[in-house]
Amino acid sequence: MIIQLTPNCSPAKRQTIESAMASSGMTVSPVDTQFRNYLIGLGGKEFDIRAIGCLAGVDDIHFVDDAYQLVSRMWKTNTTTVDLGDGVQIGPNEWTLMAGPCSIEGEEQIVAVADKLVEQGIRIMRGGVYKPRTSPYAYRGGGLDFLKLWYKHCRERGLKIVSEVMDVRQIDEMAPYVDIFQVGTRNAQNFNLLDALGKVDRAVMLKRGMSGTIDELLQAAEYVFSAGNEKIILCERGIRTFETAYRNTMDMNAIAILKDKSHLPVIADPSHGIGLRKYVPQLALASLLAGADGIIIETHPQPEKSISDAQQTIGFQELEKLVAKMKRLKAADVV
Amino acid sequence: MIIQLTPNCSPAKRQTIESAMASSGMTVSPVDTQFRNYLIGLGGKEFDIRAIGCLAGVDDIHFVDDAYQLVSRMWKTNTTTVDLGDGVQIGPNEWTLMAGPCSIEGEEQIVAVADKLVEQGIRIMRGGVYKPRTSPYAYRGGGLDFLKLWYKHCRERGLKIVSEVMDVRQIDEMAPYVDIFQVGTRNAQNFNLLDALGKVDRAVMLKRGMSGTIDELLQAAEYVFSAGNEKIILCERGIRTFETAYRNTMDMNAIAILKDKSHLPVIADPSHGIGLRKYVPQLALASLLAGADGIIIETHPQPEKSISDAQQTIGFQELEKLVAKMKRLKAADVV
Amino acid sequence: MIIQLTPNCSPAKRQTIESAMASSGMTVSPVDTQFRNYLIGLGGKEFDIRAIGCLAGVDDIHFVDDAYQLVSRMWKTNTTTVDLGDGVQIGPNEWTLMAGPCSIEGEEQIVAVADKLVEQGIRIMRGGVYKPRTSPYAYRGGGLDFLKLWYKHCRERGLKIVSEVMDVRQIDEMAPYVDIFQVGTRNAQNFNLLDALGKVDRAVMLKRGMSGTIDELLQAAEYVFSAGNEKIILCERGIRTFETAYRNTMDMNAIAILKDKSHLPVIADPSHGIGLRKYVPQLALASLLAGADGIIIETHPQPEKSISDAQQTIGFQELEKLVAKMKRLKAADVV
Amino acid sequence: MIIQLTPNCSPAKRQTIESAMASSGMTVSPVDTQFRNYLIGLGGKEFDIRAIGCLAGVDDIHFVDDAYQLVSRMWKTNTTTVDLGDGVQIGPNEWTLMAGPCSIEGEEQIVAVADKLVEQGIRIMRGGVYKPRTSPYAYRGGGLDFLKLWYKHCRERGLKIVSEVMDVRQIDEMAPYVDIFQVGTRNAQNFNLLDALGKVDRAVMLKRGMSGTIDELLQAAEYVFSAGNEKIILCERGIRTFETAYRNTMDMNAIAILKDKSHLPVIADPSHGIGLRKYVPQLALASLLAGADGIIIETHPQPEKSISDAQQTIGFQELEKLVAKMKRLKAADVV
Repeated sequence: MIIQLTPNCSPAKRQTIESAMASSGMTVSPVDTQFRNYLIGLGGKEFDIRAIGCLAGVDDIHFVDDAYQLVSRMWKTNTTTVDLGDGVQIGPNEWTLMAGPCSIEGEEQIVAVADKLVEQGIRIMRGGVYKPRTSPYAYRGGGLDFLKLWYKHCRERGLKIVSEVMDVRQIDEMAPYVDIFQVGTRNAQNFNLLDALGKVDRAVMLKRGMSGTIDELLQAAEYVFSAGNEKIILCERGIRTFETAYRNTMDMNAIAILKDKSHLPVIADPSHGIGLRKYVPQLALASLLAGADGIIIETHPQPEKSISDAQQTIGFQELEKLVAKMKRLKAADVV
Repeated sequence: MIIQLTPNCSPAKRQTIESAMASSGMTVSPVDTQFRNYLIGLGGKEFDIRAIGCLAGVDDIHFVDDAYQLVSRMWKTNTTTVDLGDGVQIGPNEWTLMAGPCSIEGEEQIVAVADKLVEQGIRIMRGGVYKPRTSPYAYRGGGLDFLKLWYKHCRERGLKIVSEVMDVRQIDEMAPYVDIFQVGTRNAQNFNLLDALGKVDRAVMLKRGMSGTIDELLQAAEYVFSAGNEKIILCERGIRTFETAYRNTMDMNAIAILKDKSHLPVIADPSHGIGLRKYVPQLALASLLAGADGIIIETHPQPEKSISDAQQTIGFQELEKLVAKMKRLKAADVV
Repeated sequence: MIIQLTPNCSPAKRQTIESAMASSGMTVSPVDTQFRNYLIGLGGKEFDIRAIGCLAGVDDIHFVDDAYQLVSRMWKTNTTTVDLGDGVQIGPNEWTLMAGPCSIEGEEQIVAVADKLVEQGIRIMRGGVYKPRTSPYAYRGGGLDFLKLWYKHCRERGLKIVSEVMDVRQIDEMAPYVDIFQVGTRNAQNFNLLDALGKVDRAVMLKRGMSGTIDELLQAAEYVFSAGNEKIILCERGIRTFETAYRNTMDMNAIAILKDKSHLPVIADPSHGIGLRKYVPQLALASLLAGADGIIIETHPQPEKSISDAQQTIGFQELEKLVAKMKRLKAADVV
Repeated sequence: MIIQLTPNCSPAKRQTIESAMASSGMTVSPVDTQFRNYLIGLGGKEFDIRAIGCLAGVDDIHFVDDAYQLVSRMWKTNTTTVDLGDGVQIGPNEWTLMAGPCSIEGEEQIVAVADKLVEQGIRIMRGGVYKPRTSPYAYRGGGLDFLKLWYKHCRERGLKIVSEVMDVRQIDEMAPYVDIFQVGTRNAQNFNLLDALGKVDRAVMLKRGMSGTIDELLQAAEYVFSAGNEKIILCERGIRTFETAYRNTMDMNAIAILKDKSHLPVIADPSHGIGLRKYVPQLALASLLAGADGIIIETHPQPEKSISDAQQTIGFQELEKLVAKMKRLKAADVV
């Protein structure tokens, strides 16, 4: 059960509501975010919801019988818009495109990509400065110095930044330079990281775990929300299956279902979803018809020379074609 | 290596070519289909292809280094059109829609569906009269009598029929009434059935196995082709993964890759691909952008009363909306 | 619900029982096997079981609420022993070992293996004469001639034969020479084949499908049983997962659960279960502790020269060591 | 390439060796552990290994062509023994048993379990004080206070402690009270955590990721080793597959292969590997025959009342039987 408190609900009123919930056998978890205050009640015996709904300080009350609560569409029927400021939003009817290299490699690369994004009307640049690598001997990213450099160029061009955070200790140092913290597939159930991201007022994009269920992704989002941060974006990036003809299995079903079960916006990542450059644009378009609110895509001035993920990174020409097709597709009005 | 023989290649010339191939160390498999005659050479040492290419009786010669040969696009670069007659074709730029109930249930249902298809400009009706069922005690379909009844109504309306064959012994009895033999996911590697379908001049639609790889699907097609039948359609219908939020995982990546690796047309089956009615239309449209040449979909006058697959069967209103969206999508020209 | 009829239950009595079942709303399926006669009742409303249990002709009556009926241990609590005659049995406390080559390759190989089996006290020889091959151009087995030759040598030595049947049309021709019909993983849900094997009085060993669930394997067994054949053996041979370090993922959990849910004997196939010769013996032993009633293993006088499955076939020395270890393990009495 | 330096290799000698490696085109990574100093060379052109092997300061030199280096058996052929002090070791011929509850719940439970372990001759107690939970609203463990209480009772009884660490920030506070840091399946590729555990002189047990490959598990171990900690234990705890009849698919193949590819000891976790109490003991025994060096098992004085993982926790009677069977199995000498 979700109780949304009135904006200025006094501690005394709040206490009265909590007591009423507890006396119905519920376990009560208070949730205070950058926007609102909630009380989450779990378990408990059946009772007349109006007995609590009529209490002072209760703005809204809902039963939610999913495993997750605050991220459920049972409670909030409109899709959430995550606002990054300066007119950059992720949400319904936006078809947000985020693009950029796998790894931030240096100033020349940053400028080349950033200029291309501006030219194409793209407002969010992706890139990695902390890279999760299977082998400890592989390149692990340019770190904070590269992030600051990248930030400077994005700021100058009005671009927003999405970048992966791997460790609780990186949050504070990255926060001034990042608009969206990305949580990678390997940290999809790193609950301490999720909790910590709930305490910072930055958007968080959660990638689905390699073998994470739809339910687990939504529960990960519930971690962030219940720790205090409502600015959450879900990301489908392919799952691990038996097929070896490609890198991951892009799960379009998940996009459709996530959109239906949750009010959070869903971004598709076809670059990781198939892992082969040639097929990325067609899967990007397909994702939008499956229901995605946007796309995140790897692009590079010289894709084959990318430090990482070269196989799945597209060039600028393919990016331009994709942007043009997205416009024509939008105009067709079939979603 | 694929050698396409000239239409009237004499036995003597053929023998000369086979000998030349054998003397290069190749194992030679002759393939004679309803359209052409081929010699497939596998293994062998390197040699100058022109030494064979110049022989009388050789129309065309290609090296193919895929695990499959005749179904590879390395050999035949244009997508194959499977022609069912009366102007009904499956192939490039067609976006063929096949629709109908999971099971053929009786005349009233047949007529209701057939009339709706005609109204919507759909030319191929799907339906099952032999049903593979997990439990031996479940309904196994109406059999040949229902097929004949169904055929009568389709013939009157100019509709073509696609229906599943489960057993070699059913081929001859079904052949007069069926335009496309469907091989179900459970028979995806029933090699004796595939061989037998190579001997009959009817189109064959091969569903991917529940845990079948892309390569295995193409090798299954190679079975049918090499046994004598070139009229083959591939069908992606979802694979089995760890996710339980839906029935199968629709593999859009596979559609993109099958289209790239093979010249055979590819049909998407979103009904089985997700297994939940609500999401079928959006996945149908997404499949077309992923590259599919068409869609097969389960529909029923009263979906929730379907004898089988009720959960994933859409009603006529949803079908109409899908047809309309397919037209708008086609017009957007984004594929 | 399973009703076991008395051995000489008259048609009239049987009719009375069927009527009583039908009047309780059940769908009744008669099952007549080589051993007994049953009536299976599914669905229906709740009623006092004694009302039927007391009817003449009813020998035994059980409620079974699994998806499967006759193969359930809820009905038959003792593990079934499948008797092949001449003292060769598969069942509890036997730890049956079946061994032999993947493909029967010729007389020399047959004799070498058969003699080794006799020497080691092994009573069942495995081998393939009809081989399911992913590619249509691969070797498909020696066929009936090889089977007859093989049979001759086995008969002389008191060995029983287990061999794969791929097609309904092969059953009659193979039956005189085979003691156990093996149904391969690719035909695990070839329901017409399962039905046909229910009509022949030969033991049937059902391999689990590559992505077959435990429930699906038991339902496949229910097909054979309900079609008339009680001599069924289940076989775990590994499933398809994301891991590529080996051929299949041997599912020891399935062995434990199959033994618990069903009264049918379970054989483990570590050769296919891991697909790498080096590890086969240790997995064979582990399977026995997981609960298997026996092992089927690929062996060859010159493993690396096997026509098929060379990678997973063990030599005679390894076979001898395994037999010795099985004896010591049996003596340890830890199952 | 792994170069093991002599115990007192001077900085100057080390520099000479590094230079020689670099001049062969290799990337050099120095690794300094609690036991030894190494130089890891990756890439580079072919050269005569003796040119470096003869340099002063080189104790040993090996080519390793696996994706991992220091954890490979290509370099170190004997299985590593991880020594916890007081005669408690994990390694070859030990068949170490670790047992205890999923969650540490309080003093009464601690004492009951600890006493039972002592009685049964078990030297390592497992338990969780920081619990990774899918839902943010679930119980997350008793924390440091419970760990200290638990430690007191273990110390008094000569028991060692294995417990999960979820966050870099927990390492220092937990280290005084823990003998083995367990890294859970959800953190299997939390590379920052792995790196940090490389800096602390405590044994680390790495659980395989839910969909982690064998190779990824070994690379995770390489992270810990290359960051400075050689005391590593691998743990197979089941993988995520399509089967839903149990919690995870215990991968016995992985045990066999891990033991072959790496010199690190391997522990099997059948409690999570199947997730159903009834089958845990037989899978524990099977794991030992598959090659495991030991078992970790969940036990509780009242299993069905466990705060977490109740379904898979065994009672003391089952534990006693398992200990007895392990002894008889050991005596049978079949591994």
